[in-house]
Amino acid sequence: MSRGVVGIGGGIGASRFWRALLRVLDPAELTIVVNTGDDLWLHGLRICPDLDTTLYALSGRQDVERGWGLADESFRCMAALRRLGRDVWFHLGDLDLATHLLRTGLLREGARLSEVTERLAAAMGVEAGVVPMTDDEVTTLVETTDGATLHYEEFLVRHQATPEVARVVHSGADRARPAPGVVTAITEADLVLLAPSNPVASIGPVLAVPGIREALLATDAPVVAVSPIVSRVPITDPGERLRATSRAALLASLGLPPTATAVAAYYGRLCRRFVLDAADSMEGDAVRALGPGVDVVPTLLAGRPPDDVLARTVLAARAAGRA
Amino acid sequence: MSRGVVGIGGGIGASRFWRALLRVLDPAELTIVVNTGDDLWLHGLRICPDLDTTLYALSGRQDVERGWGLADESFRCMAALRRLGRDVWFHLGDLDLATHLLRTGLLREGARLSEVTERLAAAMGVEAGVVPMTDDEVTTLVETTDGATLHYEEFLVRHQATPEVARVVHSGADRARPAPGVVTAITEADLVLLAPSNPVASIGPVLAVPGIREALLATDAPVVAVSPIVSRVPITDPGERLRATSRAALLASLGLPPTATAVAAYYGRLCRRFVLDAADSMEGDAVRALGPGVDVVPTLLAGRPPDDVLARTVLAARAAGRA
Repeated sequence: MSRGVVGIGGGIGASRFWRALLRVLDPAELTIVVNTGDDLWLHGLRICPDLDTTLYALSGRQDVERGWGLADESFRCMAALRRLGRDVWFHLGDLDLATHLLRTGLLREGARLSEVTERLAAAMGVEAGVVPMTDDEVTTLVETTDGATLHYEEFLVRHQATPEVARVVHSGADRARPAPGVVTAITEADLVLLAPSNPVASIGPVLAVPGIREALLATDAPVVAVSPIVSRVPITDPGERLRATSRAALLASLGLPPTATAVAAYYGRLCRRFVLDAADSMEGDAVRALGPGVDVVPTLLAGRPPDDVLARTVLAARAAGRA
Repeated sequence: MSRGVVGIGGGIGASRFWRALLRVLDPAELTIVVNTGDDLWLHGLRICPDLDTTLYALSGRQDVERGWGLADESFRCMAALRRLGRDVWFHLGDLDLATHLLRTGLLREGARLSEVTERLAAAMGVEAGVVPMTDDEVTTLVETTDGATLHYEEFLVRHQATPEVARVVHSGADRARPAPGVVTAITEADLVLLAPSNPVASIGPVLAVPGIREALLATDAPVVAVSPIVSRVPITDPGERLRATSRAALLASLGLPPTATAVAAYYGRLCRRFVLDAADSMEGDAVRALGPGVDVVPTLLAGRPPDDVLARTVLAARAAGRA
């Protein structure tokens, strides 16, 4: 991986950000390290929600309206599975299934997830680098206050993020190694971006892989986080609302409120600059007090015509150079 | 399993026979023991071609025109998989995939194949008993004279049964145990039928599971085989022709010609009666010389209006009673 910009993120929120970024950045300069803590085995298939959302978004195959999955998708297989009496809570489209079949087949043949991802990216014509945080299996588990342990996707999709969360565990993270090239990419980058993703569920697992947090602390590159939270704007989109509920529930399990300042506190000394949405500008001083410099720009990318302000703002940190 | 009729067979040829049989036989009286030697892992999924063909045919879900798979099927997933650069040689329909997802999911959760099959049969409303020959993995491998080893489905579908066959191996059969109830069903049956299936590829694997051949030799029930070969009628259907090519290639590897008499010789003293197609009536004496009694009736079930002659003929052996 050549020197350039490294992005770290999850699925939907991050992908909107990468797309905005790639309007002003050469894809050859961007390497995205993707959360795999949401990955799950389902029906014998390995599903990687965040990797797939990233690949679909970057290849222009995404269903922009729905916000996840592929355009021109159908769900005949899932309907048939339900008719066979199976409890279907995670919806895999007929076209989307091809990604999971290819991935699972290659994994069973002995390929590493990073190799599979590279192959998928090439097949889809994705020019930016897309790398899983690790080739090892890490699973984000949500322990609820009533004693249940749920896979994060189960918590989010099946239970609509309603159970009260006692604790979030990134199972397997302690034994995981960063995927090949990840640490070098961070160390040699001249800008690292933490996407506007769920900090606990999407960025947290990446930071939990031994070596990645250390690389972020060691790199000379500025690390810039974009707030995933805009506290003072009502959310109307149901998917967006669900993700906001989940963010709040997971932050609450850490004793943190669902605010941009809390996200900055969660990242702590990892991040040098923090981008606040204009609506939350009054939190600027609170964030600055935690350490990072603050930029205030419109960050809400959902449903609005793309504008370049956010992308140019984060890239300005690159121009400002290494420490 | 209650006393009744036990059928042993593979996929397409057998299923046509079961359907004809069930026009005159109460499904509660029929237990079908199905070949699993064709089963394969593909894209991480466990595919059981003969079990599925049996279930689809008996539940009325089959695409009768095409002869395999489900009616109203689509192939969007396979088309997407091909666009991702995967070599697709075994076609899994979008609806058919639901069967494989359910099966693979349940197997991964620890269920046995016989349990999964029972659940699928119930979900599809299949009233006859459908049992895999074994819950263990047995794989029919074709060794070609030029040194390749092919899975039987690869030999059949990918290579269109053209390579010269040196040897057929039922890998894993020596360590396999009959699925629960299979031996008892055969022992306590009052009629056992060997379907008009490929003798080497579809009946052979069942006979290779230790205990099943012994049960067939030990049972008091008459064992009646229906010839899968009608030598003197030209085959026009491409699928039928492919299966005939395969039958001939596998029989040739045993030094046998592609004739009904050769099939009777292959079964040897296992079968008490042998049903010849009317077109092959001149082979009657040759078959009788090998031991079994002979019935001569029209056996070709493809593409003709169902008639009850074949079914009534084989069931007559049941009426004739145990030895």
